[in-house]
Formats: sequence, structure tokens, C-alpha cells
Amino acid sequence: MFKSIIDVSSRDTDSLGHVNNTSLPLWFETSRNELYRIFNPSMELKPETWNLIMVHTEFDYLDQIYYGYEVEIRTYIEEIGNTSFTVYQEAWQKGKLRGTGRAILVDFNFNNQKKVPIPEDIRKELEKHLYRKQEVL
Amino acid sequence: MFKSIIDVSSRDTDSLGHVNNTSLPLWFETSRNELYRIFNPSMELKPETWNLIMVHTEFDYLDQIYYGYEVEIRTYIEEIGNTSFTVYQEAWQKGKLRGTGRAILVDFNFNNQKKVPIPEDIRKELEKHLYRKQEVL
Amino acid sequence: MFKSIIDVSSRDTDSLGHVNNTSLPLWFETSRNELYRIFNPSMELKPETWNLIMVHTEFDYLDQIYYGYEVEIRTYIEEIGNTSFTVYQEAWQKGKLRGTGRAILVDFNFNNQKKVPIPEDIRKELEKHLYRKQEVL
Amino acid sequence: MFKSIIDVSSRDTDSLGHVNNTSLPLWFETSRNELYRIFNPSMELKPETWNLIMVHTEFDYLDQIYYGYEVEIRTYIEEIGNTSFTVYQEAWQKGKLRGTGRAILVDFNFNNQKKVPIPEDIRKELEKHLYRKQEVL
Repeated sequence: MFKSIIDVSSRDTDSLGHVNNTSLPLWFETSRNELYRIFNPSMELKPETWNLIMVHTEFDYLDQIYYGYEVEIRTYIEEIGNTSFTVYQEAWQKGKLRGTGRAILVDFNFNNQKKVPIPEDIRKELEKHLYRKQEVL
Repeated sequence: MFKSIIDVSSRDTDSLGHVNNTSLPLWFETSRNELYRIFNPSMELKPETWNLIMVHTEFDYLDQIYYGYEVEIRTYIEEIGNTSFTVYQEAWQKGKLRGTGRAILVDFNFNNQKKVPIPEDIRKELEKHLYRKQEVL
Repeated sequence: MFKSIIDVSSRDTDSLGHVNNTSLPLWFETSRNELYRIFNPSMELKPETWNLIMVHTEFDYLDQIYYGYEVEIRTYIEEIGNTSFTVYQEAWQKGKLRGTGRAILVDFNFNNQKKVPIPEDIRKELEKHLYRKQEVL
Repeated sequence: MFKSIIDVSSRDTDSLGHVNNTSLPLWFETSRNELYRIFNPSMELKPETWNLIMVHTEFDYLDQIYYGYEVEIRTYIEEIGNTSFTVYQEAWQKGKLRGTGRAILVDFNFNNQKKVPIPEDIRKELEKHLYRKQEVL
């Protein structure tokens, strides 16, 4: 599991007095950085070398998130397929789970535009971050 | 169905040369404005009067979206329940469907923090925007 | 002068009940697209062909901007130098000037990392959009 | 001086291969949080109690910022007037100053819509963060 801390910005709030629904997708994307680094140690975000594409994201809004308190994002691997994997993420504030999300990514070769089976060493690294319910209890 | 046009910003792109996955959630939120207006004709976004909360969003990335060409967002109602409804949205560029999304919203009273059955007149209005496959052919 | 219409998003507001200061930089960037097109007719945003870099932006917040009403952005050229030019922009809502901004861009060759004198034909095109006070009266 | 660390997101980059000009305004806003806390210890971002409004921001883009390396934001007070003050901010990456910015804020009473002289205790607190050239040498 990867932990990252989000400093809520006034920009993240809306006039309803809480954090807008569009912040979770932004925070979760940022918090996948360490996961991207497993696939791309040099973190060179360019089509010649990058090897991941996003195919699906989803977000469940469980409780309101507020300005003035940091948010902790927990990032797990939920499932590993042959060429794709699912990321599961949680947003916690003041000890309470406020939102969750999933992202499905595919190991992809931008040069020939083909899916790539996830290499064994990367698979092993991903498995270290597999979600197990007891981790969050 | 509501149509809105997005002028893709350099901000929406990323170093992979296409639009970043985080743009769909932002564009789809903006494109739900006309839907929000059905529930809130005055569009006063404040807890005392606003009556919608977001409980779920999801996004499918079907094809790359590029800078330099406008994106058309089509916004439909997919399903209407007792207190909640599902929005279905599509992002088109250069005649091709590039991404889709769903958002589940609940009719909500912020003052007593309770779900509210969707009023009959609003339900009728929503029904005018129900998704029917032939509309997109 | 270029006109563009911004559909204010709930995302643009903050818990103070108005549009957050960070929206002007985003809206003004999007609204410079037609200006960028003068320099890059193909709008291919990649270092091999793109020819503009941003060196300075500034924003004056004159009055509050609200959700529920569209914002009109007016984009002018204020000054044209040898290799650089200044963009002047205004944000209007409900007939009132709410914010202004300036951006200084340089005509730049990314391949040899050198400034480029603005070509005569582009200069002529830019001059068509020069700010003249009477235009806004 | 306040230090904060920004985890650059793929969202912050653009197709030119670096961080987009619109990220500085977003990062600098987030990094002013600790400053806002001096004026608003409870950090309740609502018009009834909040006491700051933004009147001007500006940004100088000195060098490119890249994905894959964290950015350190340094936040200083540059000047303190009777009712307003100027924030000066720097963005550093890999030991190099990449961008700077200024923000002018006014101590403001939202209820009567009037400027307020900065209270003596807050002024003293702000003075602790005054920019002095030697700090960055």
C-alpha cells in the first residue's frame, strides 16, 4: 500500500461548503505516481517509453471532505490480470473513510499500439501492494 | 439530450501527447449544468437551497482525445429511481466516440440531511432526456 | 479581439460562494487557443513544431464571479515586440468586467532553444487583435 | 518562510513535455494554506468568518518543470500594508528556481464588505515570514 497526503486547496472546495466531486479523480491520479514508477523507473512521461494506459476509473463518494484538514490517500492493487491491473484507492480524513475509487490500467506499447503482458518482476512488485481487508482494520 | 462543446485546453493534455484521463471528470461535471438547472432553476449553489449530491461517477476511456479539435459532450438520463438518477455521458471528437461516463446523483435535502423522492414535474423533465440508442445513430 | 464563452463549473467555485482565484488562469489559457492557432495552424502541441513559450502571467480580480451565469472572455493583443508579445484578457459576467489578465509569450524554437523574431505575416495577423480602448466602451 | 512539497501529477504536464503554465497558480494557492491559517485558525472557508480576498496574482516562468521529481514551494511575505499584504512564492525543482509568483491579498470583512486593518498580532506573525534575500542564498 502506498500512502500519500493531500493538502486540500480552496480550489478543491465548492460553494456547497465541501470538496467537489472532481477532486477525487485528481488526487487519485497524483497518488498513483509511485505505482507508475514501478512500471517506469525513470518516470519519463513520453509515448516513446511510457507503458501504461488508463481504460477505466470510478469513484464512490461516501462522506463529505472538508477544507482545513489533510486527506490521506491509500493506494492498493486489487487485481492483476495478464496485461491489465486494477488499482483500488481510499481517501481518509480525520480517521474516516470518505471516498474510494478504482482505476484499470493496461500495460501498453505506444510504439506498436499493442497490449503487453505484465513482466514477472513488475508483477511481483505489484503483488506487494495487494489489498487485503485486514490492512485497513 | 444536452449537447455542450468543450474547447480543449493545453492544460487538458499531458506529456503522452493526448488529453489526460482527469479531463473527462471535469468536462462531464461542467456538462451536467443544464441538468442541475432542472433541479435548481436559480442555480444557487449553496447548502440552504441546493438539492443534489453525487454518490458515484465512472469513466471509460475508449480512444485518445487530442488538442486542437473541439469535443462534443452529450448528456443523457439513463435511469430514474425514487430518490436517485443516473446520468450517462459521451465525449465525441471528430465524429468518433472517445469516452463515456456515468454519474449517480441523489435528490437530497441538505438541511435535514435526508434523501428526497424526485418530484413528479422534475421526473417528467428528466424523462425528456432519457437515453435511447437510436439517438446516437 | 477573440470572444469565448466559459460555462462556469461547480468545480470553479469555492466555499466562499464565488469563483476561486485559480479559475481565471485556467479560463484565460483556454481562451488563448485562437491566438495559438495563428502561430500554429495545425495546433500540434509538441516540442518539434510548437513555437510559443509562456514567460509571465498576471491577473487582477476586480469583482466576484458566480456560478449559474456564463462568463465571456475577451482576448486582445496589447503589445508586439521583436520576439515577444503581450496578451490582454478580460472576464465579463452579466455585463460587468470582473477580472483582467496579461500573458507575455515568446516566439521560440524548441529545437535550438532560441527566441525567434515574430514573422511579418503573423505580426500582421496579431495586429488585427490589438486592444483599443474604444472597443470595450 | 513556509515550505511545501508538490507531487507533480501527469495532469500538471502538457504535450510539450513539461509542466503547463496553469500549474503554478494552483500549486501556489495550495501552498498559501499555512498563511491563511494565520488569519483563520479554524480554516472555516465560509463568508461568515473568512477574512481574506485575493486582488492580484502574477507568475514568472523561469525554467521548465518536469514530471517525476518533486517541487518545493517556498512561501514568504514580501510586504505588509495597512489592510493588504503581498505574498512572494518560489517553485524549486532539483535545486533550481523554476518559477516565482506574487499574490496580493486584502484583510476583508465579508459581512459589511469592508477592508479591515491587519490586526497587530497577525502582523507580528506575518513578519516572521518576511522575505530576506539571504534566506535563499
